[in-house]
Amino acid sequence: MKSIFLLLCFTLLTLSSNALVQDFCVADLTIPAGPSGYPCKSPSNLTADDFVFTGFRKAGNTSNLINAAVSPAFDSQFPGVNGLGLSLARLDLAPAGVIPMHTHPAGSEILVVVEGTIVTGFVSSANAVYVKKLVKGDVMVFPQGLLHFQANGGGRKAVAFVSFSSQNPGLQILDFALFGSTLSSALVEKTTFLDDAQVKKLKAVLGGSG
Amino acid sequence: MKSIFLLLCFTLLTLSSNALVQDFCVADLTIPAGPSGYPCKSPSNLTADDFVFTGFRKAGNTSNLINAAVSPAFDSQFPGVNGLGLSLARLDLAPAGVIPMHTHPAGSEILVVVEGTIVTGFVSSANAVYVKKLVKGDVMVFPQGLLHFQANGGGRKAVAFVSFSSQNPGLQILDFALFGSTLSSALVEKTTFLDDAQVKKLKAVLGGSG
Amino acid sequence: MKSIFLLLCFTLLTLSSNALVQDFCVADLTIPAGPSGYPCKSPSNLTADDFVFTGFRKAGNTSNLINAAVSPAFDSQFPGVNGLGLSLARLDLAPAGVIPMHTHPAGSEILVVVEGTIVTGFVSSANAVYVKKLVKGDVMVFPQGLLHFQANGGGRKAVAFVSFSSQNPGLQILDFALFGSTLSSALVEKTTFLDDAQVKKLKAVLGGSG
Amino acid sequence: MKSIFLLLCFTLLTLSSNALVQDFCVADLTIPAGPSGYPCKSPSNLTADDFVFTGFRKAGNTSNLINAAVSPAFDSQFPGVNGLGLSLARLDLAPAGVIPMHTHPAGSEILVVVEGTIVTGFVSSANAVYVKKLVKGDVMVFPQGLLHFQANGGGRKAVAFVSFSSQNPGLQILDFALFGSTLSSALVEKTTFLDDAQVKKLKAVLGGSG
Amino acid sequence: MKSIFLLLCFTLLTLSSNALVQDFCVADLTIPAGPSGYPCKSPSNLTADDFVFTGFRKAGNTSNLINAAVSPAFDSQFPGVNGLGLSLARLDLAPAGVIPMHTHPAGSEILVVVEGTIVTGFVSSANAVYVKKLVKGDVMVFPQGLLHFQANGGGRKAVAFVSFSSQNPGLQILDFALFGSTLSSALVEKTTFLDDAQVKKLKAVLGGSG
Amino acid sequence: MKSIFLLLCFTLLTLSSNALVQDFCVADLTIPAGPSGYPCKSPSNLTADDFVFTGFRKAGNTSNLINAAVSPAFDSQFPGVNGLGLSLARLDLAPAGVIPMHTHPAGSEILVVVEGTIVTGFVSSANAVYVKKLVKGDVMVFPQGLLHFQANGGGRKAVAFVSFSSQNPGLQILDFALFGSTLSSALVEKTTFLDDAQVKKLKAVLGGSG
Repeated sequence: MKSIFLLLCFTLLTLSSNALVQDFCVADLTIPAGPSGYPCKSPSNLTADDFVFTGFRKAGNTSNLINAAVSPAFDSQFPGVNGLGLSLARLDLAPAGVIPMHTHPAGSEILVVVEGTIVTGFVSSANAVYVKKLVKGDVMVFPQGLLHFQANGGGRKAVAFVSFSSQNPGLQILDFALFGSTLSSALVEKTTFLDDAQVKKLKAVLGGSG
Repeated sequence: MKSIFLLLCFTLLTLSSNALVQDFCVADLTIPAGPSGYPCKSPSNLTADDFVFTGFRKAGNTSNLINAAVSPAFDSQFPGVNGLGLSLARLDLAPAGVIPMHTHPAGSEILVVVEGTIVTGFVSSANAVYVKKLVKGDVMVFPQGLLHFQANGGGRKAVAFVSFSSQNPGLQILDFALFGSTLSSALVEKTTFLDDAQVKKLKAVLGGSG
Repeated sequence: MKSIFLLLCFTLLTLSSNALVQDFCVADLTIPAGPSGYPCKSPSNLTADDFVFTGFRKAGNTSNLINAAVSPAFDSQFPGVNGLGLSLARLDLAPAGVIPMHTHPAGSEILVVVEGTIVTGFVSSANAVYVKKLVKGDVMVFPQGLLHFQANGGGRKAVAFVSFSSQNPGLQILDFALFGSTLSSALVEKTTFLDDAQVKKLKAVLGGSG
Repeated sequence: MKSIFLLLCFTLLTLSSNALVQDFCVADLTIPAGPSGYPCKSPSNLTADDFVFTGFRKAGNTSNLINAAVSPAFDSQFPGVNGLGLSLARLDLAPAGVIPMHTHPAGSEILVVVEGTIVTGFVSSANAVYVKKLVKGDVMVFPQGLLHFQANGGGRKAVAFVSFSSQNPGLQILDFALFGSTLSSALVEKTTFLDDAQVKKLKAVLGGSG
Repeated sequence: MKSIFLLLCFTLLTLSSNALVQDFCVADLTIPAGPSGYPCKSPSNLTADDFVFTGFRKAGNTSNLINAAVSPAFDSQFPGVNGLGLSLARLDLAPAGVIPMHTHPAGSEILVVVEGTIVTGFVSSANAVYVKKLVKGDVMVFPQGLLHFQANGGGRKAVAFVSFSSQNPGLQILDFALFGSTLSSALVEKTTFLDDAQVKKLKAVLGGSG
Repeated sequence: MKSIFLLLCFTLLTLSSNALVQDFCVADLTIPAGPSGYPCKSPSNLTADDFVFTGFRKAGNTSNLINAAVSPAFDSQFPGVNGLGLSLARLDLAPAGVIPMHTHPAGSEILVVVEGTIVTGFVSSANAVYVKKLVKGDVMVFPQGLLHFQANGGGRKAVAFVSFSSQNPGLQILDFALFGSTLSSALVEKTTFLDDAQVKKLKAVLGGSG
């Protein structure tokens, strides 16, 4: 019986190994990406390590002005998510930490608090505000492309994981877009109604030119 | 021969009128929408008018602070776009007009200038700035979810049409999200690094509370 | 100046509140779902609580045979994810805990360990096996529809969060599909090559009939 | 042991029966469809019959002018395909049978000949022509929206099954669109360069008005 | 304070410049496209010009038989639309101009008249006809894959812009597919019921062979 | 008149041949695939043969243990389906034939019986069983990712065609994943509750190691 079973085995294995190169598509970052992501590495060269990301074992470095860190595991950092339509990031917030107002242009987000307390929220296109103080275990969603933020809501360190409906959700931080770029002060002021002094003050510290 | 042809006619017409209720899906705005849009009106009640929008015959009213107007033909205004994955808006810019910094959370945009001159641009997630002065006939694209603006670039009225890769691309105007909403001044300041005086000044004029 | 600004405010607010009913689509679970999810609740009735899920504050109950619990926050449990293309679940594994071999027919998965050690892996269509022991902070992806499992890999409790590229990824647990359903023993044996005694033993304990 | 297993059973079954209402979405044709299809029938009322279509047991009636029949199993005829992104149709071609030039606006097609010989082909946007005589077992694809046709290629009956990448691919038959509709002869002639006599001749037999 | 801010700046900038290579995907036309479009140019080499198309400054040449011109800004002409799911074209219609009956196999269309008067319409799969005379500013949609046309509806030049829900919507002009291709007269006649004389007359002028 | 028509011809042909490289995307299997499929062959090198698959003219070889054969025409075997979102396979079942329990991780399936009788069914995430005996002409659907099987239901040969909502639906055969892979017996037993003897017996015949 064994030999007959093996015949079956070979027949079907041949079939399936030919047919199924795209259960997954671990990114080959050395080839230019297209609109749906990076070309796939050959399945024959993959190991479990291609599907595992170990960069979140340690907390991100929060010794900075915002007392916080965002550590992404998007396709560039974690090629295993390429083509799967999801990705992950780790948020670390020291007691005074804040992830400034930002958007993810290309994905919705779901956040779960794993340590501490976080005040977080978003503003809708209709200018409705949805803000909540979350404790450990709480979950909040942030619909694609809407302005949102996270801030430590307690007196101790907070940690959260956020996942996205895209392998590459993008991250546009408002202050960097306005004050850390080459957008001229004149255009910033004209399009935001901010005062010239305010714009120049923030451009100075964030390195914006123009 | 005619009668045989008509037999064919009836046979195939019966087939196709049964089979094909979803060439299009004109929105029935009286029923709750779902994630992919509104339920469809019955095809038997539709006329050409359901696929036509006449709201852009006249310029939008630019007698306001921004000297500009955005007139959308999204699914709520133009039920014929429901389910088609596109929509349109008209931009009118008086000589000093500006469409303030904003995003469309749910769609990319393509703009064509049909009158006058427009200075427009966007900022990428990598804080790169792409700004250009466009003349009549020029086209620019704005990738989904990125901050962008339009401003009159000449001494006379300008008009553009912008279309979107979504029947409902959304529109989040930065100033209204921050200063015209119920987001507290404390949270605005904490998440944008703007000064308290600046925030309160703009909240006062834009009606923000909290 | 304030009054002019307010004029702008009213103009644009009117626009945006009309135009943008679909930044999000919190599920109205009382109306039948369609292929893309549930119909949306009216935005005017929503609060931050509609976007928050608090069901993960406590560990799932692992006092069962598998010494483990899967607690989903899919659209049925957390209507706020409807239409966003993502969802979340909490995994609790007592020291001997195991989430048995299963698939998610409708979504890929990304797992992050937040406590303890987990041995986890999946099998591809080409019958390649990708198994790894993960420690706290480690992340692994499981491509859509492939058989995978999680088992406690240490001597103490383990907890993980898993998110999905779908608001409703599904969950087909192999043993329940085969031995806890009405699929007849004859068909199970014919289509799996399992022995009759094995099938009947597991059907007895898992409640399968037929 | 059995009772403990049953405890597990109940725990997980409760979970999965709540979580998984959308493995499939059998159409409730009594409720208006949306852009992604019809609302779903309640899973609790479904049987195997909801996923089975028996309308192809007999050949379609080819006693008509085209000596052919197209029998669709689209969502309207076979509610089980709703939301699955595919559908099927049966083609019957008597010896002189022809399925006239047509398009499927909303789906690509794959055809397999199960009896007889079929000459079939399509024209691309670049006006390239791909025509082939197929025998039993042969397969051909027709990319979405392109003009194509099928004609009996032998002296005996031919049968094919065609499946589509959509639950509702649509079917626009060129002659009916032009000559069996209310499109005026003047507009047909102006937009096709066909002669007036030709247009009126076909309108007469196909029942077109205007 | 500036130096601390700059520390933040560098930290976050590093993050975002790594993470976000796919806000957009300007086509590199020198590499073969895939199903979702062309591979992306490196973001570091892009300028605003990559997102701008200036080919519509002048009217298309209408000195031809149809007294009309279609000028596309699809991905091949305007690489900036690659991956964005939209594109644009300019229509010029001299007083007697007509864009003959055609389809876009891969995208829906939205048209806005910017000069003159246009009679336009489409035919549905159910052979319903939706025709309308549009004036300047009017908008009409044409669902994906359906036969439609545009004709000058007044005594003077008309111009319209049409945008599509695809970066490459395709364009199949009925007369060219039937009479300007290598499809044999016999097959054209068999699949359209047109008379032999009619087919040969149009093939002669449109260059069709076979 | 002919020369003027030809002028039109050249004008429009130039337009369309430039614009429309992606009506289809026949796979170039020599270049690495991406998440949406393989890069496209140049349209200028294609013939009708690129859209035709002749591998189903003969029955698959059923001289094996399962007395059955699955012959796929997925993208690897039939490059013409690349990018079209569908594919096909032929099933041959000798009188005792069975296609063992399996899933297609990346696509839904629609089956039509073209010869003989087939007993087939699937199990849902809620562990509901949908089984049916199908005769020639009958059709059944199998939603994406769910366990299903096909078995000969009569005393003679049976043949079916199955098509999929994906160019590469995948195929995970349960027995091969569990017993024909390198997954260790310990892990198989732990995650399936199968007895050690059962696991080792099937691993022996199916060639599994570990």
